[in-house]
Amino acid sequence: MATQGQVITCKEVLVLAQLCMCEAAVAWEPNKPLTIEDVQVAPPQAGEVRVKILFTALCHTDAYTWSGKDPEGLFPCILGHEAAGIVESVGEGVTNVQTGDHVIPCYQAECGECKFCKSGKTNLCGKVRSATGVGVMLSDRKSRFSVNGKTIYHFMGTSTFSQYTVVHDVSVAKIDPKAPLEKVCLLGCGVPTGLGAVWNTAKVEPGSIVAIFGLGTVGLAVAEGAKAAGASRIIGVDLDSKKFDIAKNFGVTEFINPKEQEKPIQQVIVDLTDGGVDYSFECIGNVSVMRAALECCHKGWGTSVIVGVAASGQEISTRPFQLVTGRVWKGTAFGGFKSRSQVPMLVDKYLNKEIKIDEYITHNLTLAEINKAFDLMHEGGCLRCVLSVHD
Amino acid sequence: MATQGQVITCKEVLVLAQLCMCEAAVAWEPNKPLTIEDVQVAPPQAGEVRVKILFTALCHTDAYTWSGKDPEGLFPCILGHEAAGIVESVGEGVTNVQTGDHVIPCYQAECGECKFCKSGKTNLCGKVRSATGVGVMLSDRKSRFSVNGKTIYHFMGTSTFSQYTVVHDVSVAKIDPKAPLEKVCLLGCGVPTGLGAVWNTAKVEPGSIVAIFGLGTVGLAVAEGAKAAGASRIIGVDLDSKKFDIAKNFGVTEFINPKEQEKPIQQVIVDLTDGGVDYSFECIGNVSVMRAALECCHKGWGTSVIVGVAASGQEISTRPFQLVTGRVWKGTAFGGFKSRSQVPMLVDKYLNKEIKIDEYITHNLTLAEINKAFDLMHEGGCLRCVLSVHD
Repeated sequence: MATQGQVITCKEVLVLAQLCMCEAAVAWEPNKPLTIEDVQVAPPQAGEVRVKILFTALCHTDAYTWSGKDPEGLFPCILGHEAAGIVESVGEGVTNVQTGDHVIPCYQAECGECKFCKSGKTNLCGKVRSATGVGVMLSDRKSRFSVNGKTIYHFMGTSTFSQYTVVHDVSVAKIDPKAPLEKVCLLGCGVPTGLGAVWNTAKVEPGSIVAIFGLGTVGLAVAEGAKAAGASRIIGVDLDSKKFDIAKNFGVTEFINPKEQEKPIQQVIVDLTDGGVDYSFECIGNVSVMRAALECCHKGWGTSVIVGVAASGQEISTRPFQLVTGRVWKGTAFGGFKSRSQVPMLVDKYLNKEIKIDEYITHNLTLAEINKAFDLMHEGGCLRCVLSVHD
Repeated sequence: MATQGQVITCKEVLVLAQLCMCEAAVAWEPNKPLTIEDVQVAPPQAGEVRVKILFTALCHTDAYTWSGKDPEGLFPCILGHEAAGIVESVGEGVTNVQTGDHVIPCYQAECGECKFCKSGKTNLCGKVRSATGVGVMLSDRKSRFSVNGKTIYHFMGTSTFSQYTVVHDVSVAKIDPKAPLEKVCLLGCGVPTGLGAVWNTAKVEPGSIVAIFGLGTVGLAVAEGAKAAGASRIIGVDLDSKKFDIAKNFGVTEFINPKEQEKPIQQVIVDLTDGGVDYSFECIGNVSVMRAALECCHKGWGTSVIVGVAASGQEISTRPFQLVTGRVWKGTAFGGFKSRSQVPMLVDKYLNKEIKIDEYITHNLTLAEINKAFDLMHEGGCLRCVLSVHD
């Protein structure tokens, strides 16, 4: 892996001195197909890590920004934030990883030193947010990507739709090298988000009744987490009844399709549960569903966790009486997991067969087929599509 | 106090057999002055307690229902829910209190046996709610009040604007007879609501930064509770700057009048606190202020508690991103205190000088002056007006 001062040729990749040419899927403008480009990836500067991405999955947040609806979305950019790879080189002062380490890039950083990290109350590290939020690196507020001299922005501090990417050292988790990267790449976003929403944010207790709105990857991971937490009933809600069969394998015990109900879904669930559920999870990003998820909770203690990401400008609402009578409204980002310290633990859980990953992977394609992968995402039968980045 | 089978004459009160004639302030219709009437109070039936009310205070919930804006408000009725008195007689099977006991009527019941009481997660007992919500007693779903044969509805299961009232046995807390009833009547609503919002619902930790919206009795009790919990900064927000001087005595350390600010109040507070407060409390009942209270909370962990009661039909709203980035939205009713078991503890705290009560009482009037008391409530200088009911 030693590339400093040498020319090496990877498959479709030329690493020259510390400049690296590789292929990446570039989103030039909103809603236009991504194109595979020869991208120049600058060397990692102090506190930065260059990672050879081997496998990346697609997540709805990529599609959201690509659609142009994300007001923070910057173009051209390299999307992607759910991936796994190997450290190619590190910048000055980087001590937490070294060349050859197997890693998962983490869009949610963990520096261990900022007000957020030290609070013990949240996983929302603040160290690099001001840079990653605007598509650049912290040290010089510039991008490390370019195509023919034109700057290409980073995305979520990860930009994993590329054979090589540069991330901050606080944004990369070192994992057990025995873990299959084509599987554990999913631990970069969706699966931890669902598991952590249950374990960290809601803290579901044994015997709880749980409702899950949206049975995609995140919703199914919520089901898996709730089952592991000992929930007695796990009610899955989705407009697509075809999802119900697969959902059973993740722990869902009952299914409701709101289209088949006459009453509002929150009333249906309240009636079905003698007053409401103990915990509900919104895994879609629809503000009306967020309201239903809150209002299907039991008076006195029901807690609703917003997991899905709503479109910009949309607002949630309810009568304050819902909260005054004891319901709690929360949200979660990356399931409340501290990325660098806890993603490796999730990898170990997978290796120990304590959590599923394989079952979420419904499709495997290559980076060149990324536009097809985006199309698949909107089909009912697709949970996660994993792209092999160097094939 | 033995009145069974005898005629006794109280001041302006005639107790005949088990029927009781007394004076009460009746709200015949919304927004019309209350009138003092000779009211017949039926004897307590099984599971009921007849209480001689000695002192009652007024609270904004009384004014809200009286205004006609409360869709659940029933007229004619006897309002009032913050009071203290002495048990006059008990119905069959009542074991928790007996004639002569000093008591505080509790609009929030505590039966100890229902799903809510047994959950260990809430103070919202469900046993008598179906009756108290519609102005009647549970056993026969009838009122115990009448004037010349016309039924007068109960209010909140307490109806303390009367020399005698009938409550459910699960709705009355027995207190130390040494406690001055003209003071501890305030422990029927406002003061516990504020203290409990801090201690039970938010669970404020030492060193926390707290914001309080609305510096009436409840808001000041929040300040007192926050100070006792060791909050490092207690920011009071009110449109009436005259309230600031008195608020200092309750623990408020900083004051903001939104009228004197150019930016939205949530932004002012975020700027003033390096990112927001740890806990905020809305003690007004204004849905716009509820939003500001949430949004002035610190990303990652800030918790906002809705304490005020909004007008019917109004809704709270915010961007879901506020919750996804770690803020928590909750509410509280009676501060989360279990009424029968914890109001006596609050009385003891008052007797031990651990909590204030006297300082909230700015006016003392008689029941006959109740309309004047309602007028006073809307004046800035009035916190609590205590009515002597038998003078």
